Amino acid sequence: MGRRRRVRPSTAEIVVIGNEVLNGEVLDTNSNWLAKQLYFLGLDLRRVTAVRDDLEEIAGAIREALRRKAEWIITTGGLGPTHDDMTLEAVALATNRKTVLNPEALEMLRERYARLYEMGVVKESELTPSRLKMAMLPRGAKALRNRAGSAPGSLLRYKGSRIISLPGVPRELKDIFLNEVVPLIEAEARRVVRYVAGLFVKGVPESTMAPVLRELTAERPKLYIKSHPKGLEEGVSLVEVVVHSEGQDPEEVRKEVESAIGVLEERLRAFQPVELRRVSMEEVLGGER
Amino acid sequence: MGRRRRVRPSTAEIVVIGNEVLNGEVLDTNSNWLAKQLYFLGLDLRRVTAVRDDLEEIAGAIREALRRKAEWIITTGGLGPTHDDMTLEAVALATNRKTVLNPEALEMLRERYARLYEMGVVKESELTPSRLKMAMLPRGAKALRNRAGSAPGSLLRYKGSRIISLPGVPRELKDIFLNEVVPLIEAEARRVVRYVAGLFVKGVPESTMAPVLRELTAERPKLYIKSHPKGLEEGVSLVEVVVHSEGQDPEEVRKEVESAIGVLEERLRAFQPVELRRVSMEEVLGGER
Repeated sequence: MGRRRRVRPSTAEIVVIGNEVLNGEVLDTNSNWLAKQLYFLGLDLRRVTAVRDDLEEIAGAIREALRRKAEWIITTGGLGPTHDDMTLEAVALATNRKTVLNPEALEMLRERYARLYEMGVVKESELTPSRLKMAMLPRGAKALRNRAGSAPGSLLRYKGSRIISLPGVPRELKDIFLNEVVPLIEAEARRVVRYVAGLFVKGVPESTMAPVLRELTAERPKLYIKSHPKGLEEGVSLVEVVVHSEGQDPEEVRKEVESAIGVLEERLRAFQPVELRRVSMEEVLGGER
Repeated sequence: MGRRRRVRPSTAEIVVIGNEVLNGEVLDTNSNWLAKQLYFLGLDLRRVTAVRDDLEEIAGAIREALRRKAEWIITTGGLGPTHDDMTLEAVALATNRKTVLNPEALEMLRERYARLYEMGVVKESELTPSRLKMAMLPRGAKALRNRAGSAPGSLLRYKGSRIISLPGVPRELKDIFLNEVVPLIEAEARRVVRYVAGLFVKGVPESTMAPVLRELTAERPKLYIKSHPKGLEEGVSLVEVVVHSEGQDPEEVRKEVESAIGVLEERLRAFQPVELRRVSMEEVLGGER
């Protein structure tokens, strides 16, 4: 097979907005969920920044992402009806414009509150100032339909970047991302195919296997190989080694990973591990720390 | 009681290091744990930034935090023995110095590997190059003892900031933070006392209660009041309203919060909620999104 031109995936950044994250009130699972999505969509997530509900701080974080020329900038949180929901104002500030009443967003909110009124969730279907606030989008932005809640998302194209603003409520964030953002990424982003799998190693300390991993990395520079220490169990070290590959051909990247794991297995056996077990892609992606 | 001079708490930032976080492999719970600690220690956590295992990216994130004059900069991850553990090199780069073999760290590693050898975890007690790597700290840094793992932490004072580097393994991070960092914060940081409690509201949509919260915020500007929408349950909206206060007197801040929650309860009752339930500090701090 001939050598293909290497695709550089589009870059992405996430900006997480909310005092509740920085006060430790809320464990942010949204950016982990988005990171997994972006990874398998084949983009390159470069940075996640969490800031407070402060207009200047949010606008600052967005400006920095723009300055780094992140092609996809996804903000989470701060789209709701209350006075400290100020993400869209900050997007406007960072891109030198005002927020304006967005007709599509207005229509979405009208439909939403009419339905909530019918369901008896709200006592009036009228768009009060708090509700109208959610239809104020940066000038030039496109409203993204929220099928799981009230606040529409927003997409603003600015220079080479797209600034996508999603609500902080996970169900709503996922709804808009899957229905509105994924098709956009599939249509417009430079993407790679990825594969990852791992090896669970019991009884070989990370410092002992470090030279083996360094050597294999030197032999197969296309792969990304990393060890994650998981502590000790009854005085025996636990380490997960993961191997990533990316390219254009799904079968090829899978084989590259599987072959490297085979070699690793062989070389680590020399250290007489207590246990050596292959770890699937799903298992690799289920961790926390 | 006379009006006290308001204390501005010391500012803090967290820099999370690791491809595994940005690839979505690992849900970062460390920064949530640290955020809670910093909140109750009475510091002001301004930003959390997650970056890849890339020398320039890590050094860049640290430089930016220094430029923002964050007084406490805590990095997590990237202290281990492998070639892509490069946090301390990045700290050195960001502060214009080299890493050097740190005698305290060396002694800690000697003791550690002697013990692991006795326990049979490692097959040789010798400090191999991979192990010695963990004793290379930025010139001028102090090693922080790790009682739960191998890699020592690092404390570097630089201009008005302290750069504290902790391992990514949660057990090790917590051990160093609680035993080495907390006493330092207690001795050196400007701190406030905080209290937070909440109200769980069923049956009053966030957009309906927004004016009530805005009004109470205007009446009691010292408090921080925020609503967290929790979605719908059988067509009825669920919202958690939290009220924060900070100051110097624990009794006073507690009373301010409790009194505001009492007023909120009264005012929200006018909207005939299905349920109105007080939420304790512990419950407020247990969320995720």
